Amino acid sequence: MNGSTLRALLLALLATAGAAAAPPAPRDASADAAERIIGGALAGNGAYEKLAELTDTIGPRLSGSPGAEAAVQWALRRFAEDGVSAHREKAMVAHWVRGVERAEVIASPGAAAVPLAVTALGGSVGTAEGGITAEVIEVRSFDELRALGAKARGKIVLFQHTMSTAAGYGQFAVFRHRGAAEAARVGAAAALVRSLATGSLRSPHTGTMEYAEGTPRIPAAAVATEDAELLHRLVARGPTRVHLVLGCGGQPDVESANVVAEVRGREHPEEVVVLGAHLDSWDLAQGAVDDGAGVVIAMETARLIARLPRAPRRTVRVVLFMNEENGLDGAKAYAKAHAAELPRHVAALEADGGAGRPLEVGLRAGDGAAQLLGPQLLPLSALGIGPLAEGGEGGADIGPLARAGVPIVSVRQDMTHYFDWHHSAADTLDKVVPHELAQSTAAFAWVSWSLAELPAALSRPPPSPARGEGAAKAPAPAPNAASSSPAEPAK
Amino acid sequence: MNGSTLRALLLALLATAGAAAAPPAPRDASADAAERIIGGALAGNGAYEKLAELTDTIGPRLSGSPGAEAAVQWALRRFAEDGVSAHREKAMVAHWVRGVERAEVIASPGAAAVPLAVTALGGSVGTAEGGITAEVIEVRSFDELRALGAKARGKIVLFQHTMSTAAGYGQFAVFRHRGAAEAARVGAAAALVRSLATGSLRSPHTGTMEYAEGTPRIPAAAVATEDAELLHRLVARGPTRVHLVLGCGGQPDVESANVVAEVRGREHPEEVVVLGAHLDSWDLAQGAVDDGAGVVIAMETARLIARLPRAPRRTVRVVLFMNEENGLDGAKAYAKAHAAELPRHVAALEADGGAGRPLEVGLRAGDGAAQLLGPQLLPLSALGIGPLAEGGEGGADIGPLARAGVPIVSVRQDMTHYFDWHHSAADTLDKVVPHELAQSTAAFAWVSWSLAELPAALSRPPPSPARGEGAAKAPAPAPNAASSSPAEPAK
Repeated sequence: MNGSTLRALLLALLATAGAAAAPPAPRDASADAAERIIGGALAGNGAYEKLAELTDTIGPRLSGSPGAEAAVQWALRRFAEDGVSAHREKAMVAHWVRGVERAEVIASPGAAAVPLAVTALGGSVGTAEGGITAEVIEVRSFDELRALGAKARGKIVLFQHTMSTAAGYGQFAVFRHRGAAEAARVGAAAALVRSLATGSLRSPHTGTMEYAEGTPRIPAAAVATEDAELLHRLVARGPTRVHLVLGCGGQPDVESANVVAEVRGREHPEEVVVLGAHLDSWDLAQGAVDDGAGVVIAMETARLIARLPRAPRRTVRVVLFMNEENGLDGAKAYAKAHAAELPRHVAALEADGGAGRPLEVGLRAGDGAAQLLGPQLLPLSALGIGPLAEGGEGGADIGPLARAGVPIVSVRQDMTHYFDWHHSAADTLDKVVPHELAQSTAAFAWVSWSLAELPAALSRPPPSPARGEGAAKAPAPAPNAASSSPAEPAK
Repeated sequence: MNGSTLRALLLALLATAGAAAAPPAPRDASADAAERIIGGALAGNGAYEKLAELTDTIGPRLSGSPGAEAAVQWALRRFAEDGVSAHREKAMVAHWVRGVERAEVIASPGAAAVPLAVTALGGSVGTAEGGITAEVIEVRSFDELRALGAKARGKIVLFQHTMSTAAGYGQFAVFRHRGAAEAARVGAAAALVRSLATGSLRSPHTGTMEYAEGTPRIPAAAVATEDAELLHRLVARGPTRVHLVLGCGGQPDVESANVVAEVRGREHPEEVVVLGAHLDSWDLAQGAVDDGAGVVIAMETARLIARLPRAPRRTVRVVLFMNEENGLDGAKAYAKAHAAELPRHVAALEADGGAGRPLEVGLRAGDGAAQLLGPQLLPLSALGIGPLAEGGEGGADIGPLARAGVPIVSVRQDMTHYFDWHHSAADTLDKVVPHELAQSTAAFAWVSWSLAELPAALSRPPPSPARGEGAAKAPAPAPNAASSSPAEPAK
């Protein structure tokens, strides 16, 4: 953003902030807060500067790794420098370690001997030393897999799909989550899952997977989109054998922590608005977009609110969760440690949709809640955010809060290119456009403050056990279209 | 392309072909040839089917490798199946072999220990066992490098640049070609070159490089765009050390071959139109776009012309060159073996611009040549090709022919995404859009036939020693803007 764009934005903002306040008297505290929060997010470069430090000086921070612990200490130090009170809250987390990983098509009359771009799925067991060599069999659904029956025995099952936009993530993530377990049920030797990606330059995308009780644990890896297509073509030419070597494996759980920061409310400090993000990342890259961006959005939100001359009515609590990516251990630890307090959690939101610009705000709460929150969005209109929308998808970390009945707010961001980078080696700082990150910071910070300042708490939504973690990271407008069941969180 | 699009295209084609012929009499042989050549390229799927076979069953075919030899045999077999006379012509070629390759930033207070995505440049020596560890120093020009003088001694020199569109290739390829030699001159230990790419998902792009007489041979690698930007940021934070391991190296030259196929002319068989492409590829991928696409365009051209009821006046010779990528040994061998015949080479063109759709045809020849060739483009108008343009850039393989005064014709293709994939692991079949390849096949085939059928040979261009191999693969409209000198072929 250049200076004149910023000026125009701030002028537009002042005008709308004025309109939201009682005209034509001197601007009230709300207008003043809007100016300081939104102006502070846009005029400074705080979020991006923090993100560059997190990604470039710490880098990957998979749960249980030294990078994850360094990130905890970094966050505590940065909160302290910003004058925000913060502490660590213990969480025991999964510790999975990637090892050597490679695969190749074995030369045959119908195929060249070529390497395949693969990466182990998080949680996968490794192969025996020397790897697995087996024929590839391709399926496009679990039904097709089950119909194969004994034909899949001893094979490497390739889960093929047609993801081409972000909407496909909710639809096909089930292959990554449960593909290995389903393949093991029919006696397969290993599972390859076409990467859940919208763009690829031979870049495999990792992500978590789960085994099922009572079925063998077989190795599972993602294969780059190009190589999934290659295997499809080779299988059509004739029997295709692949050699797969994975050195990954699980380790004992590690003590780690969520980082919890607070700006205490001036009237109802016991009432809490939670803004979450997750400090852990996958190990293949810096995790700039997933979820470094959310971390710094949340940290800047705390700083922008903490420096106001007057705290909002309720407490704003920023929780940087650990282990969102492979187990949600931090989310579970928070929900357990704060169980008694959850009835006084008045709203929750999570910044885990990347660094794109903000598009709209959604709400899942009870009767009358939209009428309370809606008018508060006016100061965001110059950022292109219109009327309050329905539905609050939350993020995976605030799933337990959603299930406990806490009202959920979504600040939906542009995710057009999110799945080009997500969980791959390409999730690096250069993918973040500073002014888009600044605009999303403004939106999250203003919505968080507004939720804490509302004259009355939002009513709680009607019980709806099917909601919660299911829609995490599904593209914004699809909360009802997501095909993953609540038992299959799309993380 | 669907059936109705094809039908519309063919109808438009017939109309224009009719207009080019003598109205309103029965269509002449030229209109008939246009129908059969262009219709045959579009209605069949010959080029794509050949390309799928070349890429999926042979794959990478770096000069001197078993894949390269397999490709030679495959091409001879395929020409025979198509009823096209073909033979191999010996060429001794460079044989360079990639080995282990990795690099990482060494942990320091200012930087996380993170891997860098690197790939050796073709022709580079390897590092000593155990690799090189040195501080990175960043430059953006050879002037800046020379000004550093002793400060660069023992360092790893990072050549940084701003390539963002295809036009940047001509501008910055000099870093890949000569970076290591220039860095060695000031005592550097190794060279890293930001990949010559327009898009990146942590994908390094290889390519050839040359050492200079009298300077040490230091290891040279390309680094992915993201990692070049990371190094830029880290160097700004403080001294940044990198560990680089390259196991590559040169081997003795290997006997290999160009594959030469011909449709002999009916009136002047001694006059030759050469359509070139290169059979070798880099080793990181299938070489579908560079230059598998050109190979099958040229092979289909031979097939489409060979099956006509009457051969064109002059000979159409398809030359599938070996070793375009790292030494041009096949091009040199052809020019040497056919030196006596070059005065009777009446035109040359090369298909080495990928698989994108055809945009325009350019010509570099002498007086009156444009008036001869121009009207022949009319049957291509339904493919979007307008009047004949100026300038024939040729390809690197036909550089020796251009320097010998042979008229050069360019069929310029859409290269918008070409440098997203070029010389990287992402140069795979899925990047080729079948109907675009078919349209380019039609254009190359029709232009080749037309050159062989013209009532008189094109006059030769005025001598211009600065032209020739210099502009190979530079984007179409920039033949005069290319900053690389003829001594620095942009391959």
